[in-house]
Amino acid sequence: MPELRKDPVVGRWVIISTERAGRPTDFAAEPVRPALGECVFCAGHEDKTPPEILAGRAPGGAPNAPGWSYRVVPNKYPALRIEGELARAGEGLFDWMNGVGAHEVVIETPDHAASLATLSADAVADVLLAFRERVLDLKKDPRFEYVLVFKNHGEAAGASLEHPHSQLIATPITPIMVAEELQGSAQYYAMKERCVWCDIVRQERREGRRQILESDGFVVLAPFAPRLPFETWILPTRHRAAFEDCGVDELRGLAGVLGGFLRRLNGLLHDPPFNFMLHTAPLRDGQPESFHWHLEIIPKLTKVAGFEWGSGFFINPVPPEEAAEALRG
Amino acid sequence: MPELRKDPVVGRWVIISTERAGRPTDFAAEPVRPALGECVFCAGHEDKTPPEILAGRAPGGAPNAPGWSYRVVPNKYPALRIEGELARAGEGLFDWMNGVGAHEVVIETPDHAASLATLSADAVADVLLAFRERVLDLKKDPRFEYVLVFKNHGEAAGASLEHPHSQLIATPITPIMVAEELQGSAQYYAMKERCVWCDIVRQERREGRRQILESDGFVVLAPFAPRLPFETWILPTRHRAAFEDCGVDELRGLAGVLGGFLRRLNGLLHDPPFNFMLHTAPLRDGQPESFHWHLEIIPKLTKVAGFEWGSGFFINPVPPEEAAEALRG
Repeated sequence: MPELRKDPVVGRWVIISTERAGRPTDFAAEPVRPALGECVFCAGHEDKTPPEILAGRAPGGAPNAPGWSYRVVPNKYPALRIEGELARAGEGLFDWMNGVGAHEVVIETPDHAASLATLSADAVADVLLAFRERVLDLKKDPRFEYVLVFKNHGEAAGASLEHPHSQLIATPITPIMVAEELQGSAQYYAMKERCVWCDIVRQERREGRRQILESDGFVVLAPFAPRLPFETWILPTRHRAAFEDCGVDELRGLAGVLGGFLRRLNGLLHDPPFNFMLHTAPLRDGQPESFHWHLEIIPKLTKVAGFEWGSGFFINPVPPEEAAEALRG
Repeated sequence: MPELRKDPVVGRWVIISTERAGRPTDFAAEPVRPALGECVFCAGHEDKTPPEILAGRAPGGAPNAPGWSYRVVPNKYPALRIEGELARAGEGLFDWMNGVGAHEVVIETPDHAASLATLSADAVADVLLAFRERVLDLKKDPRFEYVLVFKNHGEAAGASLEHPHSQLIATPITPIMVAEELQGSAQYYAMKERCVWCDIVRQERREGRRQILESDGFVVLAPFAPRLPFETWILPTRHRAAFEDCGVDELRGLAGVLGGFLRRLNGLLHDPPFNFMLHTAPLRDGQPESFHWHLEIIPKLTKVAGFEWGSGFFINPVPPEEAAEALRG
């Protein structure tokens, strides 16, 4: 069973998850590239994943068989386990929780060579609707406080399989990065009576220098203080705390700008490795008026080194104004 | 001139440093490996670095010429610049500071093929004494709040040159990670009237499961909640807030355990890439009784992926008890 452990000084939680490793040094092996035709996420290999939770199929199609446009399956090597009650305990001055959670994979297309940049806007919208449906379903489980939707694309971004997929992890505590955004935006709201992300959107639209795209209710921009070169945020212009409250039209709008942005990114930087992470309001405690859901995209072009690990500062060689200009042009 | 920019939601500072890149996409190129005999840090190539600030030489030896055991030089491509006054300004809702600071390189040995694991304990102690001397000197500059000493070893850990070296960056603000440690340890002290790191050292010595080495006033241990496989902390058993207050004997003790630990790490994991980062009390405002300086070492064996970037949680496949056992054995 995985464990959640808390650093006693800074309060950072870590998941100790031994499901993926044998001896302590085994995990260091490079990910195995499957031979062509042996990818476990490709159509025809449905029996190589755990049974599907959700899929896009024509009416009457049999589950766990070909004929799907996307599939959601439990992760075969989950970071957290769905079974059991949440238990908490101390060990001297250390704090511990058992690793209860959910870890799912969204196989975005049966086509191994496709991507969110090449799929039709409708197909991308279906993937986003699958995210929403899974979040709404996991929200029913009172053990979970948050669902993080994220994507690892390319080996440098941590992907172990190249078939297009994204992931969801439901956690029993709100992640510290979301908690920091909740706190910072609540402070701003208390001072200004306005949402900080709405203010960012207003300022960036007015100035234009860091804006990359705007379409169908979404703004795509290079943030003022990007951690990494070409870091990009996609923000809905409509203030809304929770992603899962979006209507179909909003998700279609997001599908359009996400695909459009990724095509620009690929054109400029030749299919770079990247991660995206969806930040939304936690599942419980109502929805704070000060929060505004958004998608953060970080290409992985540079190495994070000792200065970043030791300080929390990031050194970014590309000003966001130049990144936005290159991505617009 | 580099800029410091603050994220308006979470308060994270970023250094926008364009010294290293030409066009926005240029930085993405892989680091150039110098041909054998052309390393700028090797003896005989002293004219290829900026003039030295400090060096270990026999009495009467000429500066910037061969005959040194270590050299400290300004970084040729500094993340922050030493010139100018600290200026702060706003830009709408965004906050900005000019990028004043110092960025130095400590060339640890003239021998390209050596490392802190193969140098004599005396040579390692000289490097640590050079760290101390540079921190004490930079402390005289009232513009600086903190000096981070760190090392990038191996390309995956962000090293662009393979010749053994470490770095110092002096910053005009206390890094957020150090601020979090200051805050967490002050809270613990307020509650317990004890230093949290002293308590960690006591508990780990008593339990032994996560302890790797103990010698000459230092404990080497795998922390309870490690972010990455084989993350290791070196803590002085003597409570002390600031690294630069250490005496020569203490730094000799640290040299011994650091070299000893790195030899074990290399033996187990075959010279893995790693970073180390020195956490010490900030330069100003006296020294908090609750802080305890320490060295954090993180081998870079796994990729940090979207879940980590989006949540601040880390997924670590190696329990620290197993890492410590493997490193002890």
